[in-house]
Amino acid sequence: MTQDQKDSEMPATDGYPILSKIKSPADLKTLPVETLPVLCDEIRRYLISNLSCNPGHFGSSMGAVEIIVAMHYVFDTPRDRVVFDVGHQAYAHKLLTGRFEAFRNQRKLGGLSGFPFPAESEYDTFVCGHAGNSISAALGMAIADMNTPGEEDRKTVALIGDASISGGLAFEGLNNASQNPNNLLIILNDNDMSIDDNVGALHRALSEMSTSARYNRLRFKTYQLFRKWGLIADKGKGLMLRFNNALKSLVAQQQNIFEGLNIRYFGPFNGNDVLKIVKVLQDIKEMKGPRILHLHTRKGKGFAAAEINPAPWHAPGKFDPETARRQSENRPPDDVPLWQEVFGETLVELAEKNESIVGITAAMPTGTSMNKMARFPNRMFDVGISEGHAVTFAGGLAAAGKRPFVAIYSSFLQRGFDNIIHDVAIQGLPVTFCIDRAGIVGEDGVTHHGMFDIPYLRIIPGLKVAAPMDAATLRDIMASSLSWQGPLAVRYPRGKADTRDWKTPFRPIEPGKSRQLISTPGARAAILSVGPIGFEARKAIESLKEKGIAADHFDMIWIKPLDTDALTEIAEKYDLIVTVEDGVKAAGFGSAVEEWLAANGSTARVRTLGIPDNWVYQGSVAELRHICGFDAEAIAACVEESLPATSATQP
Amino acid sequence: MTQDQKDSEMPATDGYPILSKIKSPADLKTLPVETLPVLCDEIRRYLISNLSCNPGHFGSSMGAVEIIVAMHYVFDTPRDRVVFDVGHQAYAHKLLTGRFEAFRNQRKLGGLSGFPFPAESEYDTFVCGHAGNSISAALGMAIADMNTPGEEDRKTVALIGDASISGGLAFEGLNNASQNPNNLLIILNDNDMSIDDNVGALHRALSEMSTSARYNRLRFKTYQLFRKWGLIADKGKGLMLRFNNALKSLVAQQQNIFEGLNIRYFGPFNGNDVLKIVKVLQDIKEMKGPRILHLHTRKGKGFAAAEINPAPWHAPGKFDPETARRQSENRPPDDVPLWQEVFGETLVELAEKNESIVGITAAMPTGTSMNKMARFPNRMFDVGISEGHAVTFAGGLAAAGKRPFVAIYSSFLQRGFDNIIHDVAIQGLPVTFCIDRAGIVGEDGVTHHGMFDIPYLRIIPGLKVAAPMDAATLRDIMASSLSWQGPLAVRYPRGKADTRDWKTPFRPIEPGKSRQLISTPGARAAILSVGPIGFEARKAIESLKEKGIAADHFDMIWIKPLDTDALTEIAEKYDLIVTVEDGVKAAGFGSAVEEWLAANGSTARVRTLGIPDNWVYQGSVAELRHICGFDAEAIAACVEESLPATSATQP
Repeated sequence: MTQDQKDSEMPATDGYPILSKIKSPADLKTLPVETLPVLCDEIRRYLISNLSCNPGHFGSSMGAVEIIVAMHYVFDTPRDRVVFDVGHQAYAHKLLTGRFEAFRNQRKLGGLSGFPFPAESEYDTFVCGHAGNSISAALGMAIADMNTPGEEDRKTVALIGDASISGGLAFEGLNNASQNPNNLLIILNDNDMSIDDNVGALHRALSEMSTSARYNRLRFKTYQLFRKWGLIADKGKGLMLRFNNALKSLVAQQQNIFEGLNIRYFGPFNGNDVLKIVKVLQDIKEMKGPRILHLHTRKGKGFAAAEINPAPWHAPGKFDPETARRQSENRPPDDVPLWQEVFGETLVELAEKNESIVGITAAMPTGTSMNKMARFPNRMFDVGISEGHAVTFAGGLAAAGKRPFVAIYSSFLQRGFDNIIHDVAIQGLPVTFCIDRAGIVGEDGVTHHGMFDIPYLRIIPGLKVAAPMDAATLRDIMASSLSWQGPLAVRYPRGKADTRDWKTPFRPIEPGKSRQLISTPGARAAILSVGPIGFEARKAIESLKEKGIAADHFDMIWIKPLDTDALTEIAEKYDLIVTVEDGVKAAGFGSAVEEWLAANGSTARVRTLGIPDNWVYQGSVAELRHICGFDAEAIAACVEESLPATSATQP
Repeated sequence: MTQDQKDSEMPATDGYPILSKIKSPADLKTLPVETLPVLCDEIRRYLISNLSCNPGHFGSSMGAVEIIVAMHYVFDTPRDRVVFDVGHQAYAHKLLTGRFEAFRNQRKLGGLSGFPFPAESEYDTFVCGHAGNSISAALGMAIADMNTPGEEDRKTVALIGDASISGGLAFEGLNNASQNPNNLLIILNDNDMSIDDNVGALHRALSEMSTSARYNRLRFKTYQLFRKWGLIADKGKGLMLRFNNALKSLVAQQQNIFEGLNIRYFGPFNGNDVLKIVKVLQDIKEMKGPRILHLHTRKGKGFAAAEINPAPWHAPGKFDPETARRQSENRPPDDVPLWQEVFGETLVELAEKNESIVGITAAMPTGTSMNKMARFPNRMFDVGISEGHAVTFAGGLAAAGKRPFVAIYSSFLQRGFDNIIHDVAIQGLPVTFCIDRAGIVGEDGVTHHGMFDIPYLRIIPGLKVAAPMDAATLRDIMASSLSWQGPLAVRYPRGKADTRDWKTPFRPIEPGKSRQLISTPGARAAILSVGPIGFEARKAIESLKEKGIAADHFDMIWIKPLDTDALTEIAEKYDLIVTVEDGVKAAGFGSAVEEWLAANGSTARVRTLGIPDNWVYQGSVAELRHICGFDAEAIAACVEESLPATSATQP
């Protein structure tokens, strides 16, 4: 495909007379303020046109257009720093900061990241992807500037959603926000949604704040009036607090949770009214001390289908901008299921027979298919973006006799690492971690790849770690695990499983027992794989066969315990062992095999394939596996290159 | 030493007429309530007598005596579940639950754990050690019971301190507490202290609640009165909330942060008044829905020196119960410094010359010696028990040009694992993690050993990981690192460094460069160590020498990058490589060496020594290293056993 062909498939960049001329926020600032609503419309049209054919995070980005336009209009970016949170909502920011053209390649190999990313632009101040880091990071910047001569007047803004702010990390940031002098402004983009519905008490508290909107508005107006009259100035923090307290007694209303944490609260205002936000930001921009501005936006704003039904429009995939039909809706009912669906359906099947089974998700009921468990009252818990709590809560449920299944994406479970060790594994509690999105995830990129779970889990005493190659084995492990002691982790990737005919009767599985899938007389190489990457190993063996090289295939299934009986035989029998895993090579499955061989005095020749010791960015799964060197081609090449020449000295 | 001699060194168990007769809480319940203050006195005397010669966590345990006595008096433990948090305060609980005699062996090898521990007693419901897990775990139990036929009336109480409740995990628990029906009671033991001073906005909010004590008392009395009059009942949650709201408007006072999270608040009361607490607990015991009871206690209560100066009396070591003189006060000023002191003094030395250096601690300014940085205004940040925030905040500071040094204990840094990856390493920010208490820590036991940091850090691309053997090398790494790019982790253990003369001039260090410390002509074995465990390797080599076996010693210093030049030579030269590390063998330093050798086609014979794949409990560091098999004796034995017999076929 030529570059011209590629371009012809891309959405056009004409038809956006204002937006297309904005090369940086400096251009934005030259616009009269009345033009901003038209600009917002252009941004929305461009997003719809682009995302309908090059999928991304649609709903949040559509909702946050006005906030982003207003921030860049009022603040002096990049000197003033804007820190996004998660970054699902940041597309308008990319368009306004010199990436209007490049946006057409977002989330593609070599293209823009789907999230703000510092290496990509000086306007992207901090990495985004995992929820709730913006307040802590922005606080660090705000305090650093405050204590650097000549930088004291730089402003820092954290833009965080109502789902992200409910996590423990965001709370730790809020709890520390007033601890040291700083002028951090937190903008709370409250669209009353996480990816799925929002949960938790803080979410209710936010609603209550909104019901006292009249009081808050009165308070803000009085404040502006007092300021105009010269009754208050913004120099001393003490004065501010006294002002706040005075107003409080004046209006005799309850203190809200943020002011309980000593952060001045403004809002709620309509976050889709760009002129209003510009005005409010101008009003509070120069104020001292930590502040929070609470804005209500509508997820999917400007695209009716997404406004009405926001959950599927969070990341809708390709869609028809005219009919609002998502391509995923065309999926035939008997299609090959997603891995997450195999997990979800199987869990329901088991839960019907075993009353002690409960399911836990951290804000991803749809993404993990844990929503299927909602049919059982009080047996499915969505704890919000709180991975640490999810794990410890599961520990508590298990300590009281339940059999919890905790489904969390691999890269997000890093947030629960200590909890797995401390609150589950030390006690040997029977919690099952169903680790979704394990391995390369593709377009979501560097923050979302599930690269590390094999090493960070296999070091934990007493934790079993499995990676089934096919849907049937995942089902079998889940079913068999109900009679096992202690905790278990099962990892499976994003995307489709192996077969339409996955709903097979349960076969008993034994921890630490592998299976040989390909056995060829005279084979000198053994390929040991864990997980569905085994299908790449199979392809590699087929292509090697064509070259006259025979290799056998072992689906090891278990990272821990290892099948040491099989390893003993393999080490004796083959001239070469190649391990393959969809995860980092360092300390991974292959490393575990090497450890065992060394400890048992074997000098077998081992090559390990997996993700090398580098960061991996966005691209398709196939592209990234190829780059990392563990697709079928790389496996075959490794066998071919590493197989020692047959010599007379070989026994 | 005979058992008799051992016993004679132990504090007596007579002189405690009430306490010594309590074999379980059932015995406690037979006491008339008026006896409880006397019992509390006996418990305190016993704790002073024991802890003065067998050190432990003194201050918190002394302060919580009345709360614990009252809990066991009012609740039906172990059917009703009490979940401790951290467990520094749980000694009285051990004494009342059948461990009065055994307590004399607490924190010793084979003795009681220093914390509640489920394997030790049915009264210990969940593992303790890392702060803030009690609410999540207890919530799991409370919800499990609510949904298990026949268990609905079981009660669950979480006892948490004011420092622990400020962490993100506790917040996630609180935020989820009202999400599903449950009757969890949270008792907040507010002694206005963490190990050091308490920090954060929540802490200030707690003080404010205390200033509105009159309102809270009025509210509670009105509640009791209404209840007595039959105006309210405890059946429906809705009714309760309406009652609360009604009272709120009645007394026209602000809502507090817990009620913002939909948890009913009672208090504050004097938590050192056992009769009062018994009464309050009886009053609120049967109430439905999540509740929080706020109690004020005094850390060190009943021992004047500890009341006056609580920080050093948190874990005072041995002391004289008469004079209140701590043995640690006798330390000569020119004593060999602790590792943490080498770190702290060196950081100050560097910070004097480099204005960009800032220090961050998560509630451990004294424990990490980060308090030494407090001499620089606005350059030392104690963020409270918030390891995740500490790391991300450091990322923000680094993104704005600072050079943050984050000092956190190894096992607590597990809480910041995702933050290290996501908020520091992906961006290659120059944050230095100073990992204190790395390796076996001794008496604090299974939850506190720093076992996992080598594997969980070495898998992160771009992160350098070092383990200096001696104080001078730690200093040199810290000084040299200021000119390096990207993040760095330096691990060092609990306890004393190697020498009095540690304040040596800085020598340049190169990442990934090892040093050979012992070289003997004809040596066939090489011992490769990282960290101060190298001194055990040296001892092993000396003892091997006596047996006529020569071994060389390499202080590898770097876990990542590995010194591959040295490894190349070592692999060629020696018949046996033995790696030694104070951490888990699985995926550890030895594993990294094996990976490199395998990848480079070496068939060198390697043995790895370190912590095996089991949990390690309490005991002295020397005892535990011996059990794990990586002290001098084990190293020597490994070399002797693994060295292949010299044969004619050897080149």
